[in-house]
Order: sequence, then structure tokens, then C-alpha cells
Amino acid sequence: MDINELDTPCAVLDLFRMDRNIKRMQEHMEELGVKFRPHAKTSKCVEVVNAQIAAGARGITVSTVKEAEAFFAAGITDILYAVCISAAKLPRILALRRRGCNVKVIVDSVPAARAVCDFGRRHNERFDVWIEVDTDGHRSGIPPAGGELLEVGRLLHGQGARVGGVLTHAGSSYELHTPEKLAGLAERERAGCVLSATRLREAGIPCEHVSVGSTPTAFAAGSLEGVTEVRAGVYVFFDLVMKNVGVCSVDDIALSVMTTVIGHQKDKGWIMVDAGWMAMSRDRGTAGQTLDYGYGLPCLPDGTPLHGFAVIGANQEHGIISRVATDAKSSTADVDIEAEFPLGCRLRILPNHACATGAQHDVLYAIDANAGVTPWQRFRGW
Amino acid sequence: MDINELDTPCAVLDLFRMDRNIKRMQEHMEELGVKFRPHAKTSKCVEVVNAQIAAGARGITVSTVKEAEAFFAAGITDILYAVCISAAKLPRILALRRRGCNVKVIVDSVPAARAVCDFGRRHNERFDVWIEVDTDGHRSGIPPAGGELLEVGRLLHGQGARVGGVLTHAGSSYELHTPEKLAGLAERERAGCVLSATRLREAGIPCEHVSVGSTPTAFAAGSLEGVTEVRAGVYVFFDLVMKNVGVCSVDDIALSVMTTVIGHQKDKGWIMVDAGWMAMSRDRGTAGQTLDYGYGLPCLPDGTPLHGFAVIGANQEHGIISRVATDAKSSTADVDIEAEFPLGCRLRILPNHACATGAQHDVLYAIDANAGVTPWQRFRGW
Repeated sequence: MDINELDTPCAVLDLFRMDRNIKRMQEHMEELGVKFRPHAKTSKCVEVVNAQIAAGARGITVSTVKEAEAFFAAGITDILYAVCISAAKLPRILALRRRGCNVKVIVDSVPAARAVCDFGRRHNERFDVWIEVDTDGHRSGIPPAGGELLEVGRLLHGQGARVGGVLTHAGSSYELHTPEKLAGLAERERAGCVLSATRLREAGIPCEHVSVGSTPTAFAAGSLEGVTEVRAGVYVFFDLVMKNVGVCSVDDIALSVMTTVIGHQKDKGWIMVDAGWMAMSRDRGTAGQTLDYGYGLPCLPDGTPLHGFAVIGANQEHGIISRVATDAKSSTADVDIEAEFPLGCRLRILPNHACATGAQHDVLYAIDANAGVTPWQRFRGW
Repeated sequence: MDINELDTPCAVLDLFRMDRNIKRMQEHMEELGVKFRPHAKTSKCVEVVNAQIAAGARGITVSTVKEAEAFFAAGITDILYAVCISAAKLPRILALRRRGCNVKVIVDSVPAARAVCDFGRRHNERFDVWIEVDTDGHRSGIPPAGGELLEVGRLLHGQGARVGGVLTHAGSSYELHTPEKLAGLAERERAGCVLSATRLREAGIPCEHVSVGSTPTAFAAGSLEGVTEVRAGVYVFFDLVMKNVGVCSVDDIALSVMTTVIGHQKDKGWIMVDAGWMAMSRDRGTAGQTLDYGYGLPCLPDGTPLHGFAVIGANQEHGIISRVATDAKSSTADVDIEAEFPLGCRLRILPNHACATGAQHDVLYAIDANAGVTPWQRFRGW
């Protein structure tokens, strides 16, 4: 299989970059003395997750019950389902546990904790429940300092569940882009999560795991004292949002979409390609950042970025590539777009958000150091 | 199968609304005296397309070769692949034609026309080629009035292809929201496409079909003199973007995402649900419109809209529903969100963009008039 013979659009995965990203994160975690539990939602691909585990990851994080089922089927047993559980999903969780999967669920409220305990009692199952705490106000979680944390902890501990740990996710880190602010948020994430664990323990509630993480805060953390594990997802592929946050360079981005030039609107300077939002996703994560890449940064087929160009528009199966004059590293002089990028020529587009772009594809075409291409299956759904 | 027992998130299709939408468009087309060729990219679902054909549609439009292959396998032979063809895709088009599929391709440049003719000559195939013209400057197409149109027409006609017609797509209609402007654009779309056909015919180049369309201009058109067929896609499901454009009401939207409440952030007035951007898509098409619905408009499980609420934020598997105070039809007084929308309760979210939201799902759960639920498969990929 030759990369230049793949039908376009298609998702291409640069294994050299991916392996370097995995190694970089794992080494950083080992320096900080914590376990690393990658978030499998980014890839939904067994081969990718196996590479993370081979590098030293301990267990995985998932965002859907289907991910838990698929990765358990692939032999992974230590799984944290990191979206607050609803009662309707407990039968599938129970089925996984009965088959030997050590899947953990999370709650962030008294009603949710009660629902897990009630279901566990009815089915004679001691669920492993982690409590989500909120350290940056961006999504779910209980305040680390209030009374609700202990109420939830006592309810779980007293009614037959195992309080396995506390976790938090400083997702607002995606909105930052300076080392100082990222380090500050990483410390806030750590401190809030450790405080939660300490308060539970002082109240006599066991709390073995203290789990923090997001890709930006994982890299920004200087100390993780009191933390037992870190979670991160998008670091495995990286993307333009992470480049703008400042935790990777364009040359670290392992995922791209191969596309073909299907036309030109010369008067407007537009190169039309067959990667629209169906191939790139509708994610416009760089829109509010320091450098807006539209729907992605085009590169030559060998991966050389076309700095100064962007996918400025997308319909379902059409992308519009054009020059944008905002990048200091711009390498483009005036070019004759029809001569430089003729009909049928191929380009590779780096994505804003690797989780969203990857999800548009059933296959990742993995390219190894010898330019060998192997199709790796992704799955989706719930 | 009971709608209230479906795992969430999942896509739900209201067949009463869908059938009404199909009927409305088909009747409008018959009043205008044109054939209707629905765009199958919206549903990628054989059952939906069969309903469109049963109502009177003549042939379909597709956005990928895979759609052509899938719908041909389902028995549909009159297929217009409405994205400019690249040479690398011609072998699959040829294979379809050799199996009896009357699939038509489009071009909008001399190099593309030449590539089709060259390939056709090598494989002894007379391709049916339509020429895309640009009537609103938003994407692809040749100007109707310039010399390139005749150059492309002569090349195709002289080098072994059949010039089957001209087509245009006034996609910029999505940016409008007044009847006057929509009618004006519909007339511009019609006039430009008819002009193109007339010029080709006067130059001795046959041009049987004159094909226009987008959902907004299809409804806005007062006369379609000289047009032979109309294409439209999203009308079959409708969505909040189309509601804002003014061509449907909220009560016409047939596609929704069923979700479950998984938590609350009471201080902020947030209802957390298990439909994030993976279920809704990243499409924020209403962001620049007269009323911004965030990632969608929540409804009760029976479909009653919660006017005054919106999905104000989305992570991969988390949605945040909150009150927004912008809708004149707001029906919400101050509510206790934990009491009104308790943990585990279900909501249905109407999407910004039905094409994008539908594409996030492998199954549409079709609900008939008796609340019977049938899973309809969608496909994806290229």
C-alpha cells in the first residue's frame, strides 16, 4: 500500500511523530513520579492504545461505555469511564465487571452516588466509584472544599461502593497559551484534587487514587505531589489547538487528512480540495486562539507545512485553501496556485482538533519510518 | 423497541415530520414544473432516500463516490455526483457505469474536462459530464458569462464525453434570512444556470439538464423557467440553521439527539447531559445567525421545545444546557433545574445542522406515528 494511492480524503497517522509524542509524555510522567492513564477517546484505536501501554501507561481512560467494551475486548482491564455515570448505563458496566473488567465509574452528586449504590445493592456488586471534583469551573465536578464532597464520599462508602479515588480535569487549559498561566492552572488542578483526597481520608473514607489531567496541564505541571496518576488524550496526536496553547510544535502533529486538489477559483486565490468538514470535522478550535488556521493547515504530501496557507472554508465535501497573511513563519511568496497546486495534486491537512478530526474516519492509515502504510481501524458510537 | 429504552446519546428521526417535509418540497417542485433530485448526503440512509423517491423524486444527488456505490447497490441508477471529479476517482465511476449505473460527474475547468475525456478514451467510455457554473461566488464553478464555459463545453463535446447539463448551487443562501433576499438569490441562481445552458446550446453543444438548488432557494424560487431539475438536501430533516434562514419552523425539524441528564452545576444553572459534540457535531451554524442555539435546542422527550434554553457548551461527551434569554417565544419562568430536569431524565436536542449531526451517528432511530421505533442504518466514509 502506497500513501499516494490512497483514496482521498483519508486520515494519515505519522507513527514516528506519534511514538515521539507518547515517549515524551511518558518520560515526563516518570520524572514527576506518577502513573499515566491515557485517554483513549482521542484515537478509539486499539493499535494506538497498545503503543501507549507498551511505553508504560497504566490503564486507560474512556469517554463512552462502548470504548470500555471495545478496549476490554482487546485485553485492557484497568479502565476509568470518566463521564458521570447515569443509571441507565449501569447494566453495561455491570456486565463488563462480571466478565473481569476493572471498570471504574465516576459521580459528582448525591443522586448519582445513590443511584450507583442502589443498583449495586440490587445486583450484589461493589462498584469502584471515583468522585469528580471541579478545579477550574469549566464543566462537571463537586467543589473540593465544600460539604457535598464528604456527603457523596460517606454515601458511597457507607452504602456498599468502593471509593476508589478522586479525579479532576482542568479543561479550561485549552483556553490558555502562556507557560505561566498553564503552570498556574496545573497547580490549581493538583491542589484541588489533593485537597479533596485529603478531606475524604481525614473523614475516614479511603481514597487511593488522585487523578488529574489534561494535555496542557500534564506538560505544564512542575510538581505533582499527592497526585497518583495523570490523564491526557490529545497529546498522542497533537493538533493546531495544542500548538497554539504552546505544548507542541506543528512538527509534532501526527494526524493529518490527505486530500486532492479538485479545482481552483483563480480570481479569489482559492484551491478547492476534496476534504471538507466531513473529513476535517466542524471543529474551529483555533478560531479564538492566537493564530486561526481555519479548518486546518495544509502541508505538502511529505508533511512540509505550507505556512501562510489555511483551509479558509469548508462545505461537506469541499475545502477551500487560500493564503492567509498572518503567520510570521510564512514561507510563501506570490505563487501561481494552478501551477503550484495543479488539479489532482495531493496535500495533507493538519487538524485543529485531533479528537474531532479523527472521529470522522473509520481508518487511520499508519505510516511507519519506511513509508509503509497499514490501515488501523477506529470505532465509534456509544 | 421503546424510544425511552434507547441508549443515549442516539439520533432520533420523527417520520411524521420527515414525510411532511418530503411532501412539501415535492409538491412545490411539481407546482413549479421541475423534476426534483434530492441530495442524499443529508441522510446517507437508504430508507430515507426511498421515501423521497416514493414521493416523486427523480434520481439523486451524492457528495461522495461511496454514496453513489451504496445507493446504486440499493437499486438507484440515476445518480449525480455533484463534487468536481478528480482523475483518481474515475476508475470507481467507470466501474459503476459498467455495472449499469447512470452516474454523472461534474467538472468546472478545462484540466478536469480533459482528464475525464482522456480517461474515457483510454477505457472506451463515454462519460456523462455536467458543467458546474458559479452563480453566487461561494464555492466552485465557472462563470456563466465567460469564455471558459464554452471552452469546457467544446472540449467535452469534441473529445468523446456527453455534456449532460449544467448545474449550480447557491450555497450562500444559508447566509440570508429574508424572503426578498432569498427570492433574489433564487432568481440569480436560475438565471445564471439557464444562461449557461443557452450559451452552450447556441454554440452547438447539447445541454439537456439545467440543475439548480439549495434548500433555501428551492423554497424561495417563484419561477424556474428554463430549469429542468432542482436539488436540495437538508429540507428532508430541516434544522435550526434552516429555521433561522426562515424556510421552516422549529416544529418541522425531524432529526434530534436523545440525551440523558448526568449532572447539574446548580450555581451556574447548568444541566449536564451525555450529548456532547460527538453526538451533536461541532457545527455552530447558528452562531452567526439571528438566534444562536449554541449546539442545539433542547426539547422534552415528546418533542416539546424548551424555548429559552440552549446547549451552551459541548465537550466530546458532555453537553451543557442552560437558559439563554434571547428567544421571544421563551416559555420558561425561573425553574429549579434539579427538580425540573433531574438526574437520569431524558431530553431531545434539535441540531444546528442536520447533515453534520446525522453524520455523527451510524443509526437513525425512526419513530412512526404509533411511536414504534425502527433502527435505520446510515453509512459514512468515502
